Amino acid sequence: MREDLFLKGDTAKRLYEAVRCLPIVDYHCHLSPKEILEDAMFSDIAQIWLSGDHYKWRLMRACGVPERLITGDAPAREKFRAYADCIETAVGNPLYVWSHMELAMFFGIEDALSAETADDIFDRANAYIRETALSPRKLVLQSRVELVATTDDPADSLEYHEQLAAEKDFPVRVVPSFRTDAAVNLKRADYAAYMDRLSTACGFEIKTLEDLKKALSARLDFFCAHGCRVSDVGIEAFPKRDDACCANETFRKALSGEAVSEAEYRNFLFDLYVFLAAEYKRHNVTMQLHLNVRRNASTRLFEAVGPDAGGDCVGDPIPERDVAALLDAMDKDDGLPRAILYTLEPSMYMALATTAGSFRGVVPGAAWWFCDHKRGMEEQMNILAETGHLAQFYGMLTDSRSFLSYARHDYFRRVLCNRIAEELDNGTLLSETAALKLLNRLCVENSRALFA
Amino acid sequence: MREDLFLKGDTAKRLYEAVRCLPIVDYHCHLSPKEILEDAMFSDIAQIWLSGDHYKWRLMRACGVPERLITGDAPAREKFRAYADCIETAVGNPLYVWSHMELAMFFGIEDALSAETADDIFDRANAYIRETALSPRKLVLQSRVELVATTDDPADSLEYHEQLAAEKDFPVRVVPSFRTDAAVNLKRADYAAYMDRLSTACGFEIKTLEDLKKALSARLDFFCAHGCRVSDVGIEAFPKRDDACCANETFRKALSGEAVSEAEYRNFLFDLYVFLAAEYKRHNVTMQLHLNVRRNASTRLFEAVGPDAGGDCVGDPIPERDVAALLDAMDKDDGLPRAILYTLEPSMYMALATTAGSFRGVVPGAAWWFCDHKRGMEEQMNILAETGHLAQFYGMLTDSRSFLSYARHDYFRRVLCNRIAEELDNGTLLSETAALKLLNRLCVENSRALFA
Amino acid sequence: MREDLFLKGDTAKRLYEAVRCLPIVDYHCHLSPKEILEDAMFSDIAQIWLSGDHYKWRLMRACGVPERLITGDAPAREKFRAYADCIETAVGNPLYVWSHMELAMFFGIEDALSAETADDIFDRANAYIRETALSPRKLVLQSRVELVATTDDPADSLEYHEQLAAEKDFPVRVVPSFRTDAAVNLKRADYAAYMDRLSTACGFEIKTLEDLKKALSARLDFFCAHGCRVSDVGIEAFPKRDDACCANETFRKALSGEAVSEAEYRNFLFDLYVFLAAEYKRHNVTMQLHLNVRRNASTRLFEAVGPDAGGDCVGDPIPERDVAALLDAMDKDDGLPRAILYTLEPSMYMALATTAGSFRGVVPGAAWWFCDHKRGMEEQMNILAETGHLAQFYGMLTDSRSFLSYARHDYFRRVLCNRIAEELDNGTLLSETAALKLLNRLCVENSRALFA
Repeated sequence: MREDLFLKGDTAKRLYEAVRCLPIVDYHCHLSPKEILEDAMFSDIAQIWLSGDHYKWRLMRACGVPERLITGDAPAREKFRAYADCIETAVGNPLYVWSHMELAMFFGIEDALSAETADDIFDRANAYIRETALSPRKLVLQSRVELVATTDDPADSLEYHEQLAAEKDFPVRVVPSFRTDAAVNLKRADYAAYMDRLSTACGFEIKTLEDLKKALSARLDFFCAHGCRVSDVGIEAFPKRDDACCANETFRKALSGEAVSEAEYRNFLFDLYVFLAAEYKRHNVTMQLHLNVRRNASTRLFEAVGPDAGGDCVGDPIPERDVAALLDAMDKDDGLPRAILYTLEPSMYMALATTAGSFRGVVPGAAWWFCDHKRGMEEQMNILAETGHLAQFYGMLTDSRSFLSYARHDYFRRVLCNRIAEELDNGTLLSETAALKLLNRLCVENSRALFA
Repeated sequence: MREDLFLKGDTAKRLYEAVRCLPIVDYHCHLSPKEILEDAMFSDIAQIWLSGDHYKWRLMRACGVPERLITGDAPAREKFRAYADCIETAVGNPLYVWSHMELAMFFGIEDALSAETADDIFDRANAYIRETALSPRKLVLQSRVELVATTDDPADSLEYHEQLAAEKDFPVRVVPSFRTDAAVNLKRADYAAYMDRLSTACGFEIKTLEDLKKALSARLDFFCAHGCRVSDVGIEAFPKRDDACCANETFRKALSGEAVSEAEYRNFLFDLYVFLAAEYKRHNVTMQLHLNVRRNASTRLFEAVGPDAGGDCVGDPIPERDVAALLDAMDKDDGLPRAILYTLEPSMYMALATTAGSFRGVVPGAAWWFCDHKRGMEEQMNILAETGHLAQFYGMLTDSRSFLSYARHDYFRRVLCNRIAEELDNGTLLSETAALKLLNRLCVENSRALFA
Repeated sequence: MREDLFLKGDTAKRLYEAVRCLPIVDYHCHLSPKEILEDAMFSDIAQIWLSGDHYKWRLMRACGVPERLITGDAPAREKFRAYADCIETAVGNPLYVWSHMELAMFFGIEDALSAETADDIFDRANAYIRETALSPRKLVLQSRVELVATTDDPADSLEYHEQLAAEKDFPVRVVPSFRTDAAVNLKRADYAAYMDRLSTACGFEIKTLEDLKKALSARLDFFCAHGCRVSDVGIEAFPKRDDACCANETFRKALSGEAVSEAEYRNFLFDLYVFLAAEYKRHNVTMQLHLNVRRNASTRLFEAVGPDAGGDCVGDPIPERDVAALLDAMDKDDGLPRAILYTLEPSMYMALATTAGSFRGVVPGAAWWFCDHKRGMEEQMNILAETGHLAQFYGMLTDSRSFLSYARHDYFRRVLCNRIAEELDNGTLLSETAALKLLNRLCVENSRALFA
């Protein structure tokens, strides 16, 4: 991709030069601490790109590529060729720019991907991997990452984080994040089994909701002792208080395998979220909520390939009144921690941003998943700026399973600098000093402060 | 309108030159096959523009024009004058550009419409109609249309299609589309009477839901024998399974004039849509769903002028979970055909596009009705591109009752070329060859393939 | 701010020059008629800016400013400094441009606000206030305001309006608007007490819904005798007919302190709104509806600071079917007055604009509150233009409690002229005469006509 990608005019280029080399604090991602610890050389570019990336699988399915070349047993070269063929005309999909940025930044390959160039690029990329013994840590260091916050289950032993912290020669902080999906989603078939895992992790049996709260609190202590400063949850349901339901009783039902109604489930979530929020506040942990996702829309695909296969989509809007009621319940007894709200549904941005803005310390999060592209980033930042204070934004995160995804920080910084330059050029921001102050906060200072 | 309308820069102009003269496959419109067959000369431009176009009626009502000059018995010249007066300041409404494009492309008139110019333009346009004996087929041929897919009821005899197919000297394929509104909407007062019509058409009495399914299947055979490759439905209600309801029983109630609840109606739709989908798949027919319309919002207007009078509007969002549930039910037993989903509500684009993208062969459709203008087209294409693969888009359709509406394909091609040129100019699309491949697909190849 | 703010290109500048000095008809604001009458000199800029402006309070809270410096007892200079510090990086928030415009237009101060410049600007602005004895009327006259429509309760005595009308040397018409929130919101704890106030105002006791209707009709007569031509309502609930409820009985319950269900409340609203609409039509009064607001999301903030403290947000979408049902009920017996619909939720624009467009004389209103900025204005005007007729738009209002807010009309005119110039430059509007006709209507003629 060209040097001035997304940078219209001299101001944009100047601002970008000022921030392009700033370090990265990746405060939310799905990288594997085990892979970072083991640091094994990659086998080939198809492994990196296509072995687990459901964004790419989905694009290939949209093009009618047979499943054998997507998640099946076709040879790496064939899969790569099929992907290259799709990418050629995939203009506007962020994968187009990401793929070319990754080739350029990490492999020095400047060619356009297509069916014609696929074989040549496949060979050159793989030669580069072998020559440089390309591995996770190399990519992380090359990207100037100073901190990685992985996503971890409360029952996790954090053994890899512990070992990584002990490694003297790897200067990157790798810290866990407290992701409670499994602990709160009592609709899952294996919920009781999960409670056994969590019981084992905390060393006492969880029989009541009180026990669960004690267990989560203890695990949060443990996580914080390993550098955790961020929590997360991203289930389909949203909490809603219902005075006709009793959270303790709902939990008992779930453990004993009895049916739990939607209202009971959501009331249980309400109770638990409010409890967790106060715990986060007490532990100085930031609360992240990922909203409006629907998982596994296609049963056939789910049964054939499993979860995270590219069958997820933007779910229904959450009533603003429910979001406000949850935040208000947390806030009432001063138990609302610093919080970041992400949504997949841009039509909720206005309600979400203004509801967040009615509470101190709650900020809308970066454009997420299907919204994570230039136009989506601009939309998210515009609404945050118009309805609140842009300088409070925590900026870019990768939210990715791939070590190549750090290219997206460069993508973000370009979009951001271009956006702010526009304001300077238009005379709607009067000081370049202020612009640089703002850019530094959004590129690294605000996210770094989460871990201070 | 100027030669370079919507085309910013040389790349856009170059791309446009490459596609402007491509043929048109109009895969969804409301042209009358009878009018094409009879090919009568138009009487005057007020007849073409104002005798049935509820877009224009609506604009005139917004301006406070009395109904006499809209749908009343005022002379053609007066109506034309009133419309010209409204158009003068109707900037931003697509009618402004459409009207001027139609005057320029089909009548060679380059003047701006206004109360002042109305009489002169009226006279010149009518003189042109007389001199050239302007008629439907002339407009269709002049627009390089190679195929017209009209919208037809399953009970239709398709006699005009048959006669048109027999005409040796008219090179345009005119094929029917299978539009099931009347057959599925059992809330309509005349539903039982419609079933009689359908019974007659298929030659046996429809007494049960099983009979209805057999009838629709037989009519689909008949339509396909006449070149049908596309189906459509565009009612207000959306299907929703409800296990407490029985579709067979609901159909029986409807036929016997008993009350049917909303839940029963929607459960019946669910049953029937899933059946029809499998039929479409078996017949290699593409399924179109037109969503989020509310008809006849003003009772007074409906009672005075009837349906399709300009009193329709964007209806409420359909829950994404309902859309996903319907597609999933079709998909489960491999009965999901190639499908195109249209919505009037842009706030549903993200949910709809990502839900579509979770199933193979389902694509969001072109910007529809109130969204059918430059900004709406760009929004629809941006979201399709960002969340899926733009090259899968079927491109422009007219969705119109007017033979002048082929100007909208030129409008679309300009918007499209400008949009893709932007990507080339910005360096976010790296190959002009790829751009041309994409443009050819969106201008004609993808829609042509529907009828292959 | 620079002279050509928002004006891209010569056409935009030319159009703006043609309208920049047009008078202002402020058809909806919250200015105090008492303050206009008394015309007291302002004490200092912190009083003007920070004593009551919840937009600014909210921004300061987003930045983490302690409440003492926002609504607390900190000295004026300290509060001003805290606000200046927030503004420095508040790019994109309309407060950034508004604050700098107000400094430039009303105080002749061109510097950029920041913590560094705060003290100096504070001193200079206050010196200017003292030197010029700056007061409400001076600001109103300087802004070329020809009419101010304040927002008044039906029980109001309108004594200040009366006295202002009698003042020979103040050439600005100050008229009341009929704001019915307190009269229709029977969920408020003090509803019975309010009915006592209203009874006193109209001179007879209100015991039944019939009485209330008579009272409101009498007060509307009284308001109209004082120049009222506009009504307004902006509560959270939206009317919905429910045949199981009886509005008379609901009103009786409310007066006697009995519980009223949500359904009963909304059915009562439906009944009363339809009645009021017919009254407005009979009185030639325009009906304004302000939709989709949620008040006081944070209980803690509400208890600490009260209402209008910066804790409001965009509420949930109102079903389009409910909006259509209300308008249709008003329209059925020809009781639908000229109406303006405002919404805080941009995702409702399409449904609202097209529903409005299905009825004569109903127009979407200006971008409101959180939407009142360049992008929001453009979005609102684009949708109005695309789905209706832009020339019917009533243009800018201040909706403000501050006499400095007339700067926003200049802001609007710049955005508007730039938008229309774009159309001329692009060739999608063919006549500059038509452009000027349109601009004059949107800047002053349409709003002036409301009071003709």
